[in-house]
Amino acid sequence: MEKNALKDLLELVAAGKLSPPKALDQLAELPFQNLGFAKIDHHRSVRTGFPEVIFCQNKHPAHVIAIVKSQLEREETVFATRAGDEVISLVCETFPQIEVNHIARCFWKKSRHWKAHPSPRGVITIASAGTADATVAEEARCTIEITGHPCTLIQDVGVSGIHRLFAHQKELRESSVIIAVAGMEGALASVIAGYVGCPVIGVPTSVGYGSHLNGLVPLFAMLNSCASGLTVVNIDNGFGAGQAASMMNQS
Amino acid sequence: MEKNALKDLLELVAAGKLSPPKALDQLAELPFQNLGFAKIDHHRSVRTGFPEVIFCQNKHPAHVIAIVKSQLEREETVFATRAGDEVISLVCETFPQIEVNHIARCFWKKSRHWKAHPSPRGVITIASAGTADATVAEEARCTIEITGHPCTLIQDVGVSGIHRLFAHQKELRESSVIIAVAGMEGALASVIAGYVGCPVIGVPTSVGYGSHLNGLVPLFAMLNSCASGLTVVNIDNGFGAGQAASMMNQS
Amino acid sequence: MEKNALKDLLELVAAGKLSPPKALDQLAELPFQNLGFAKIDHHRSVRTGFPEVIFCQNKHPAHVIAIVKSQLEREETVFATRAGDEVISLVCETFPQIEVNHIARCFWKKSRHWKAHPSPRGVITIASAGTADATVAEEARCTIEITGHPCTLIQDVGVSGIHRLFAHQKELRESSVIIAVAGMEGALASVIAGYVGCPVIGVPTSVGYGSHLNGLVPLFAMLNSCASGLTVVNIDNGFGAGQAASMMNQS
Amino acid sequence: MEKNALKDLLELVAAGKLSPPKALDQLAELPFQNLGFAKIDHHRSVRTGFPEVIFCQNKHPAHVIAIVKSQLEREETVFATRAGDEVISLVCETFPQIEVNHIARCFWKKSRHWKAHPSPRGVITIASAGTADATVAEEARCTIEITGHPCTLIQDVGVSGIHRLFAHQKELRESSVIIAVAGMEGALASVIAGYVGCPVIGVPTSVGYGSHLNGLVPLFAMLNSCASGLTVVNIDNGFGAGQAASMMNQS
Amino acid sequence: MEKNALKDLLELVAAGKLSPPKALDQLAELPFQNLGFAKIDHHRSVRTGFPEVIFCQNKHPAHVIAIVKSQLEREETVFATRAGDEVISLVCETFPQIEVNHIARCFWKKSRHWKAHPSPRGVITIASAGTADATVAEEARCTIEITGHPCTLIQDVGVSGIHRLFAHQKELRESSVIIAVAGMEGALASVIAGYVGCPVIGVPTSVGYGSHLNGLVPLFAMLNSCASGLTVVNIDNGFGAGQAASMMNQS
Amino acid sequence: MEKNALKDLLELVAAGKLSPPKALDQLAELPFQNLGFAKIDHHRSVRTGFPEVIFCQNKHPAHVIAIVKSQLEREETVFATRAGDEVISLVCETFPQIEVNHIARCFWKKSRHWKAHPSPRGVITIASAGTADATVAEEARCTIEITGHPCTLIQDVGVSGIHRLFAHQKELRESSVIIAVAGMEGALASVIAGYVGCPVIGVPTSVGYGSHLNGLVPLFAMLNSCASGLTVVNIDNGFGAGQAASMMNQS
Amino acid sequence: MEKNALKDLLELVAAGKLSPPKALDQLAELPFQNLGFAKIDHHRSVRTGFPEVIFCQNKHPAHVIAIVKSQLEREETVFATRAGDEVISLVCETFPQIEVNHIARCFWKKSRHWKAHPSPRGVITIASAGTADATVAEEARCTIEITGHPCTLIQDVGVSGIHRLFAHQKELRESSVIIAVAGMEGALASVIAGYVGCPVIGVPTSVGYGSHLNGLVPLFAMLNSCASGLTVVNIDNGFGAGQAASMMNQS
Amino acid sequence: MEKNALKDLLELVAAGKLSPPKALDQLAELPFQNLGFAKIDHHRSVRTGFPEVIFCQNKHPAHVIAIVKSQLEREETVFATRAGDEVISLVCETFPQIEVNHIARCFWKKSRHWKAHPSPRGVITIASAGTADATVAEEARCTIEITGHPCTLIQDVGVSGIHRLFAHQKELRESSVIIAVAGMEGALASVIAGYVGCPVIGVPTSVGYGSHLNGLVPLFAMLNSCASGLTVVNIDNGFGAGQAASMMNQS
Repeated sequence: MEKNALKDLLELVAAGKLSPPKALDQLAELPFQNLGFAKIDHHRSVRTGFPEVIFCQNKHPAHVIAIVKSQLEREETVFATRAGDEVISLVCETFPQIEVNHIARCFWKKSRHWKAHPSPRGVITIASAGTADATVAEEARCTIEITGHPCTLIQDVGVSGIHRLFAHQKELRESSVIIAVAGMEGALASVIAGYVGCPVIGVPTSVGYGSHLNGLVPLFAMLNSCASGLTVVNIDNGFGAGQAASMMNQS
Repeated sequence: MEKNALKDLLELVAAGKLSPPKALDQLAELPFQNLGFAKIDHHRSVRTGFPEVIFCQNKHPAHVIAIVKSQLEREETVFATRAGDEVISLVCETFPQIEVNHIARCFWKKSRHWKAHPSPRGVITIASAGTADATVAEEARCTIEITGHPCTLIQDVGVSGIHRLFAHQKELRESSVIIAVAGMEGALASVIAGYVGCPVIGVPTSVGYGSHLNGLVPLFAMLNSCASGLTVVNIDNGFGAGQAASMMNQS
Repeated sequence: MEKNALKDLLELVAAGKLSPPKALDQLAELPFQNLGFAKIDHHRSVRTGFPEVIFCQNKHPAHVIAIVKSQLEREETVFATRAGDEVISLVCETFPQIEVNHIARCFWKKSRHWKAHPSPRGVITIASAGTADATVAEEARCTIEITGHPCTLIQDVGVSGIHRLFAHQKELRESSVIIAVAGMEGALASVIAGYVGCPVIGVPTSVGYGSHLNGLVPLFAMLNSCASGLTVVNIDNGFGAGQAASMMNQS
Repeated sequence: MEKNALKDLLELVAAGKLSPPKALDQLAELPFQNLGFAKIDHHRSVRTGFPEVIFCQNKHPAHVIAIVKSQLEREETVFATRAGDEVISLVCETFPQIEVNHIARCFWKKSRHWKAHPSPRGVITIASAGTADATVAEEARCTIEITGHPCTLIQDVGVSGIHRLFAHQKELRESSVIIAVAGMEGALASVIAGYVGCPVIGVPTSVGYGSHLNGLVPLFAMLNSCASGLTVVNIDNGFGAGQAASMMNQS
Repeated sequence: MEKNALKDLLELVAAGKLSPPKALDQLAELPFQNLGFAKIDHHRSVRTGFPEVIFCQNKHPAHVIAIVKSQLEREETVFATRAGDEVISLVCETFPQIEVNHIARCFWKKSRHWKAHPSPRGVITIASAGTADATVAEEARCTIEITGHPCTLIQDVGVSGIHRLFAHQKELRESSVIIAVAGMEGALASVIAGYVGCPVIGVPTSVGYGSHLNGLVPLFAMLNSCASGLTVVNIDNGFGAGQAASMMNQS
Repeated sequence: MEKNALKDLLELVAAGKLSPPKALDQLAELPFQNLGFAKIDHHRSVRTGFPEVIFCQNKHPAHVIAIVKSQLEREETVFATRAGDEVISLVCETFPQIEVNHIARCFWKKSRHWKAHPSPRGVITIASAGTADATVAEEARCTIEITGHPCTLIQDVGVSGIHRLFAHQKELRESSVIIAVAGMEGALASVIAGYVGCPVIGVPTSVGYGSHLNGLVPLFAMLNSCASGLTVVNIDNGFGAGQAASMMNQS
Repeated sequence: MEKNALKDLLELVAAGKLSPPKALDQLAELPFQNLGFAKIDHHRSVRTGFPEVIFCQNKHPAHVIAIVKSQLEREETVFATRAGDEVISLVCETFPQIEVNHIARCFWKKSRHWKAHPSPRGVITIASAGTADATVAEEARCTIEITGHPCTLIQDVGVSGIHRLFAHQKELRESSVIIAVAGMEGALASVIAGYVGCPVIGVPTSVGYGSHLNGLVPLFAMLNSCASGLTVVNIDNGFGAGQAASMMNQS
Repeated sequence: MEKNALKDLLELVAAGKLSPPKALDQLAELPFQNLGFAKIDHHRSVRTGFPEVIFCQNKHPAHVIAIVKSQLEREETVFATRAGDEVISLVCETFPQIEVNHIARCFWKKSRHWKAHPSPRGVITIASAGTADATVAEEARCTIEITGHPCTLIQDVGVSGIHRLFAHQKELRESSVIIAVAGMEGALASVIAGYVGCPVIGVPTSVGYGSHLNGLVPLFAMLNSCASGLTVVNIDNGFGAGQAASMMNQS
């Protein structure tokens, strides 16, 4: 519609009903997005396959319910992250059609208009170091699956018993993108990135204690790896890693 | 000129030489600033009275010379900060018309097109805690003076001998904006802001040693003051403080 | 009255009832404020239009009630920030005349002696990056409104969808002071300050997670911007930003 | 008694019942304190006037009760710091003779054997910046008073309204030791130490928010002051400051 | 060859010349890579198109010369980063065939066996915030070009004058991967990632001063962005970003 | 059994039932640990005497119960650390045979297959600075005792009353490994390591307040000691220290 | 003289030459120090025995020479700290009467008007941990000696060989104030303060490497000691410790 | 001799020439070490096999020469670390008999009285991640070799190409103590400790850039590993690791 606004303006000029200097003034007043921002946003959602996302943390349960209700009524796809127990209970009671991954603290409902992503380049593998990293790893998996990308999750393959990781060498080598989720000293990302030839996204987690600095230690460790193809997202940001991995996996 | 580009386009539409749909396509391709960004930038420089500024730090002396030469040839006002000894010597030799404040490490040449700022609200006072803060205080002063705002500099009035500060209470109370420059524990900004009724800009400096953390201590101290009207800029950023003070002093 | 104390002393000297040396001794014993400090404080409150402010955080609800009661009895203007749910409930029950902004966690009651600020230079605009920054943005707004300065609040214009911000370019450019409230990476303050010609006050917020360091990241980001006219206050300090903006907006 | 152990050993040698080489061996096995450590400790408690102190924080209420009971039975002086509400209630119920300072979170009972400190050099003054610093300031006061040193407490004299401090210049100048208690930016310690000629002990407090870093900001600010005679203790350590001040005040 | 070693071993078993138990012992002694590690490394270099890289920083010039000499003699492709002036002069004198990018501090020589990467998915765009970020941006460009991926460099488009960035919207939107290089507050990465639909790699740089913390500020800012598809590498790691971008750009 | 898998494969080759090239393919697919990793792990558990350990922190009580149940059924030795009150109560109710150390927050049940460690080199001594460090010290003790190493615990020997430490000089000097557990400033580790000739493991604890940084201060203090033979583990890591000490005490 | 200015003013009033209201106006304009600040400063220098101090660090040698020259001409006592080799050479050449302590990097010349401090309470002992701490320890000693307080320096008594410290127990116990100078982990201050009954001033030094954080580690360690009577100054601040110790040693 | 002093005293008592009470007084005055400290030190040097060590960093070359000269004259073993180029040149010229390891920056001369350590438990292996870590790894090796313990050095086995490490699995598994030297993200220590059954000492190095924090990142990473038997020393402390490893390797 913004595009239409522009078109109308230009047609007024073409029809001699608006002089070029006046049109110029009006143009200067039109918000930028009239020139395509909104369209681009639309394009992006089509291209990346991402619905609107509800970040539940710090939101009042009633507000989450209201947003979900509105999305369901408009037949939009619902996707929510960082949902606490109270929110999830309330959502499930109110909207029985909602699907939930309790470990990931995510819930969703694909609308019937929702289309799986057309052309993945391959499989995205998520490898996590310990069972305590499961929340973050599952958040990444939910994020990827909502986009329709194929995804494999390998858990509990931290470097303090590195043979567990190498037992999965085949899956790792056949991945087109890998997400490495690790707390403690975060060495898993380095080891995997040194071992495969595809992009690896490191997700440091806040799992640890003492001098762990709430996840800064694995974050810095991953940033300081000299393994090739390794990039990093914020601590516990399974959603961001899943989103980036889906983008990287598009052909 | 971008404005002209737009105007030409619209005149082509008005003249029937370009159909609205095609004009729309062309518009979508025009960079945003064609719709006014460049004009706004121009407006801003007129309004704030700020010339282009050369931040010399880490620039090769030859590059600085080249930029200054170009500005002088276009009869633009030259203003440069963070100039080291080598740069200043070279500039002075090459362009004898350049004026220099060695303590501030700044040099400048007002062009004949340059106009002093029209309507200051009052006097800007710069108060510095110690003689070692002089570089930063003088950088703020040069920045203010290039804009034509009236400016007073009070030095060596740190809180470890607070009577020195109060000897200047009259100037402080008659200021419309105050810049407080202090290293060490940075308490000067708090004390002044608790004492006057005008906006105060705190400039922490890197003057100190030991647990001074290169200026983070006075920076944090100023941010944690509960005195009213105190805002803060980066460590040693006399230029930024001078620029903001000039903006605040505009009527 | 302190002024009177001084005057009395001098009249005793003039009347020959007190010798100069003895007067000197007495003067040395008089607290400084007798020489004008208290008067100045009074002048400042007149000039800045700021009532006494109650910072509720960590205060016992009963203490807040007592302070409010005392202020109402003296017909002073009441203004309180950082009030939790319990405090607000108690205050509303006890003093039905109190007005409340629940999002801002502020409450107030203007006394009939309270006067709006006489001469604002223009409109103060508050722009916030996300809905989670609303508490801080509203605190700034309440602070400004108690002073009688005109104020506009633009919400949810963070840089991750920058077209939302530019849709408000007109309001931004017509502001005389702007407050930019942002958590996460805090880039909003930089973008706005690079875009307008008036003073901008950055307010970093504690909204974020992981390596956000409870707001230190947007704080440092704002301090390290090279956009002109940007100064910064403490994390979540909407009150301080509002107070400074009001001072800057006085003509 | 350790002294006696030694004496016995030497008397055995003197009586020819223990050869010097064997005594040497036994001596090497005796713990050091037998040679005077315990005596010295005793001397110190006599000299400094300090009873055993119970640091209640993180102790189970039942354990605190047990310690107090034991001390009372042995007719020792009881002195406890950092006592929470639960502990204080329980202590008061169990031992009605105990005295309590609720703000300081301290309780005590001087034994009849307890003697006030014989010879203070002067008055110790405690100055605190804000009402929120009262807990720490009162902890220092209780600590000083248990030693019998004279002590004056001046509250709410923070630097954001510095005339409040100077109204107390006489008390400050007549002190022999001053304790400056301040949160926020901690500037009070600098200002006082720059103003008087006696030792000043800075106590940073955890009162603040945002970039306050739980008290690290006033701690570092105090350490970086260039005012003379200022030394510093840990954040919120009112007890330590009181103890050190009492030592400094001994003649 | 390791594979051959294994094969030989198995053939000895098949030929009855080695008993299974003895083969088992020998196998346990064979290093892991014999089972495929070396082969995989080889595969990876074929797949990613990356030659051995010489990280010159802290290496003695003579050592760099020796490594280059060895690589040239073996007709391997040479690629070196972080080369200082002395190293570059020496390399150029010794090996006239070497190509150099002085801004990037890189040099290289593609061997005749070297093959450009077969199938890029699109163009990689590098956008840098300021001219001072050129070293890092150029390092990324050299890294990408050695792999044969198409690459565009857009410089000086920092957010403090955001219209400069939007003038390049077309290139940005047509990229398949973008590298955003920025020092100061690092906001460029957020703004770009919020604006496009492809993966964005943020490279914080050490360009800044005061509270910039040598690049930690833009690093943290990028990690805390909520823009989609943004991942981050270490401060000044243009090489790592180029390498990861090339991997992401492989179809 | 992995070893058997390999043996079977080789026997098939020896029997002519599997050609070497096919065996090679199968070998490449076998996870590494088949080549000895599992065996090595087994060897390690035999050698170090360590059972599987349950780190209860952040685990749901029901999950802990399930793991313990499974271990008891398989007649494995159970050893759990960081168990909260709720977990311990539940475990004790469910499995009356479990032994508990409440201070250490550990519980265990040695299986009848469990064997004490065969050949300790000497006694491991644990010295802790204050009573508040007891949890960590006891965790170390439980860890050592499960391995069968002899262990002595000396408590409350912090350096602020150093004669208490020296009263135990004999035990300290006769130890073959010492664990020094200390919060606050952590000086105990330095003093002990400067005093004995055996390896000393420093365990910093989170006991402290104010600028204690949750244990980073004693951690860094221990790392910066110049006493010989001192190595360090993470904050509060009594388990890790106990495990390392047992390894060092093996002859 | 400020006192005289006041006196003159009052005498004019007494003489009827100045009306009380006009005197009141003039008084309001007089800087505070006229009411006694300058006098107090004078009192302080008399009381503490401290001359003006030249902090040479970062001062241009020529400026130091100019200040010294001026002080010598006015027959003031000269005392300078943090003087580098170049400054010391220049000062010695220019003013042969100057005395120098090269290790302390201090120089001085007592004027004939200078008086030793009248009444020390006892001996100040300086104990330093290692030979590398000598600069700081000697700076403290020079500072104390200029005041005329008796001072003993005990070197190289760090806790990694704690018997060296205890060999000096007699001097330590007979001191009235102790300064403990230590880098590395800074444990010396804790050990001494736990051992004596007088005030102890801890001076952390920047001697160390790795995770020493340029002296923050011993600084924090000293602040977190629970030994009684210990207060702390900034890293390497031997001068400040000496000044405070002299104040504490005044009877 | 201190022992003799004690013996003399006791003999005087035994001979009736000194009464027990007077002996008691004299004993209280004797420094502690008279009771065995010095002897113990002697015992320790015999037991650990460590000569006096010269830490050259920050020492003046002439002082180093003086110390070495003194040691050689007394026929003591010389061992020096952190020697810069200038010191090494000077030492080699002056004392041709000195042996040097230039990479380690160490030099030494075993005296003819020096004895190799009698009974090592096995081989100490040093594994380093990259060639840039060679200085630290070699410092550890020199330290171990001076004690006579067998030592193997494996270089360039960092985790970004983990097969290089596993090629050395045999040496690793047969070691009795392992030192893991790594900069960057420091993951090598975790991987090795998860892989072997002996004590592992992690030595983080300052090799890295950007967010590496001068070695704090690998330091924290190693501390946060959950691999068993891993303890850590200060950044770049190859000497400390070597010393601790030698102690651990004693039977």
